[in-house]
Amino acid sequence: MSIVQNITGCFNTTIGSSGISRREYNTILKKSAKALSFIKIMISNNNPLFLLPFEKKDLISLEPLVRKFRHKFNEIIILGTGGSSLGAQAICSLASYKTTRNHKTPKLTFVDNIDSERFESLFKRIDYAKTGFVVISKSGNTLETISQFHLCFNSMEKKIGIKKASKHFVLITQNGKNTLRTIAKYLNILILEHDKDLGGRYSAFSLVGLFPAMLAGLDVYSFRDGAKTTLNEVLKQKNSKNLESFKGAAIAFSLAKYRRKANTVLMPYSDQLISFIPWFRQLWAESLGKGGGGTTPIGSIGTVDQHSQLQLYIDGPDDKFFTLIKVTERKKGKKIRPIVRRNSDLNFLYNRTIDDVMNCQLKVTKSMLIRNKRPVRLLEIAKIDEKGLGSLMMHFILETIIVGNLDKINVFNQPAVESGKKLAKKYLRDI
Amino acid sequence: MSIVQNITGCFNTTIGSSGISRREYNTILKKSAKALSFIKIMISNNNPLFLLPFEKKDLISLEPLVRKFRHKFNEIIILGTGGSSLGAQAICSLASYKTTRNHKTPKLTFVDNIDSERFESLFKRIDYAKTGFVVISKSGNTLETISQFHLCFNSMEKKIGIKKASKHFVLITQNGKNTLRTIAKYLNILILEHDKDLGGRYSAFSLVGLFPAMLAGLDVYSFRDGAKTTLNEVLKQKNSKNLESFKGAAIAFSLAKYRRKANTVLMPYSDQLISFIPWFRQLWAESLGKGGGGTTPIGSIGTVDQHSQLQLYIDGPDDKFFTLIKVTERKKGKKIRPIVRRNSDLNFLYNRTIDDVMNCQLKVTKSMLIRNKRPVRLLEIAKIDEKGLGSLMMHFILETIIVGNLDKINVFNQPAVESGKKLAKKYLRDI
Repeated sequence: MSIVQNITGCFNTTIGSSGISRREYNTILKKSAKALSFIKIMISNNNPLFLLPFEKKDLISLEPLVRKFRHKFNEIIILGTGGSSLGAQAICSLASYKTTRNHKTPKLTFVDNIDSERFESLFKRIDYAKTGFVVISKSGNTLETISQFHLCFNSMEKKIGIKKASKHFVLITQNGKNTLRTIAKYLNILILEHDKDLGGRYSAFSLVGLFPAMLAGLDVYSFRDGAKTTLNEVLKQKNSKNLESFKGAAIAFSLAKYRRKANTVLMPYSDQLISFIPWFRQLWAESLGKGGGGTTPIGSIGTVDQHSQLQLYIDGPDDKFFTLIKVTERKKGKKIRPIVRRNSDLNFLYNRTIDDVMNCQLKVTKSMLIRNKRPVRLLEIAKIDEKGLGSLMMHFILETIIVGNLDKINVFNQPAVESGKKLAKKYLRDI
Repeated sequence: MSIVQNITGCFNTTIGSSGISRREYNTILKKSAKALSFIKIMISNNNPLFLLPFEKKDLISLEPLVRKFRHKFNEIIILGTGGSSLGAQAICSLASYKTTRNHKTPKLTFVDNIDSERFESLFKRIDYAKTGFVVISKSGNTLETISQFHLCFNSMEKKIGIKKASKHFVLITQNGKNTLRTIAKYLNILILEHDKDLGGRYSAFSLVGLFPAMLAGLDVYSFRDGAKTTLNEVLKQKNSKNLESFKGAAIAFSLAKYRRKANTVLMPYSDQLISFIPWFRQLWAESLGKGGGGTTPIGSIGTVDQHSQLQLYIDGPDDKFFTLIKVTERKKGKKIRPIVRRNSDLNFLYNRTIDDVMNCQLKVTKSMLIRNKRPVRLLEIAKIDEKGLGSLMMHFILETIIVGNLDKINVFNQPAVESGKKLAKKYLRDI
């Protein structure tokens, strides 16, 4: 089992009437059987989301390009926003923790906004001859990405000329006519294919998440392997009731439906998951926030937010469901050696590692939430490496799809934002 | 006027019954007169929070130490968590946008967590002889900070010896007996005073926020000046109804009270305010989340979250109050030069700067929220430099205090988290 889950802190037997009853939970869990069929149908229909974890060839074919980019550039800037950026950011953050890091690994910089001050300082800093760009937009029509691309290409062209500049860019977009594709063709920029059937927020396991990860020197095969582990557990089960993703989805859904927990707080106790949070927020919000429904995802970092948000969490409005994430096999680090040896205030530190302190603080938060009758579950994962992260991301993709299925929501569209895109172009014309 | 505010998107005349009526708003705004007296009494009682913006001497006296640290170290690590870190992080992030940056400015690294993986990679990376540490804890008893300090000191001591190591550290803590102070005295580490009457989340204008900012080479006098501008507007008014902070607080409070907007979304359209968001989240959550009340702060980044959260914001549960922040005087950057000149899809880009695109997207979000009957206000600030940020931070401190006053809440304590601190030490002993 890649992920261990403890949901006892969500039941009325533990936290009173703020928690749900076993009966309510079991009813919902039973209903989730439909979602299991739905997922199995998706798989048998070769849905890329669930096919990718079993693939290797597509990544192998990218390797020559990756080698070339890693050799040629000392910095690679990834342009794109939302689903074209957050998955890769979540994965690539692992690279900064690699202690055996190859010094020839280029620095990856994600620019997902269009802030002029950010670009100004970027252009002053970079070494043009040694900087590459990866431009990612599924539609190829995202206004921000088109603007980012132009700004960077204009700047690069001025320094090294149009022909050379084109060799510094790669575009990832879907097939068919679109603005970025037209420009890339015109400039002879290499184009890689974004699967048409894969929405941005579900694209982390495709080249959208993994081309940047390969550039960062990560083991992307292990990352897919982690997702495969989680998926295989689902595939081999006939009954959903023993699957952690189904249990998690049933708890989240029933707490929202029967106990009005309108917010879902995700609080990992690991710095390596800080970039995972915005990815989760998009996945959850954009998939489920429809027709007045859905719950609002809130990111929190343990232990940091014990010193920032805990007062509100335990004594503010009781409208939240908490998910704490614990990493069980961490580099424990050296034991802390108390400096003032006779100081009794430091007794608690003797023979402890910093990892012990982290785990104690997690236990404190869980206890405090339960004492204050706030529903909380604990997810435990062995390790946050490529495999662990792949496993965790697939777990949350499944939870999202299952909750959507329970709530009769199409988790793959985002109807409310589409009209905004037209509005932006209109406003720009009208300035 | 340093901050311009537009609140029309919050009224029922604009967004129907989801908005508040002018009558409700005016009743609350009238009640806020009490908060104006409260603030004026705080000032006449020499409360440091409101005195600091008028001070200079304390910063001048820090300058020799700052010069020494900036000369001696090429990296300075700031240890501490919550209020001991978030204010300084918000301010210091400005340094990364300084295009005229002095290359001798040491790199500032904030470590506000106790993740063993983070420390492991930190210790492999740093140049011990050229690294300084600033340890910040008001109480001097924060478990995380004590652990961080030991880990760093143990490591440093091993490399350069105990006597030399002590010269690489500075501690900021309050007067009186506490664990970190005892250790610092034992090791002859320099101690700077954290004002006893200044809570962590209100300490950004003291040396807690400004010693790191000075190390980063920022103009801290301008930062205080910004706060002074905002405060002076309050001081010279007899009536609260024309003050932006009172108007903002009245809107926030009445939307929470009369329209059940349980969440408050802060969405700046500026990368320079990304680190400002966690500071605001602590200020708001810890000050107001008490006795089952308060609203939950949610950070969002424009335009990034248009591609991540907007679907939920406009089509999910109607339980949020939105604050968009616009920066009016940005470095506009060069005009975007469309590459495929005959492509009509790019017409909207002609003669536009990236800043135009940013502002259009902000306008889109505001329109979409109003169309979908979600309460939204717009705050405009001329510039995010030291002065602008100081002004904005003081604005939100005032809003928080005014809402607390309207809600009869003590905004300066955090009762619910105190018992957790004892629990952590108990758990550590019991492992």
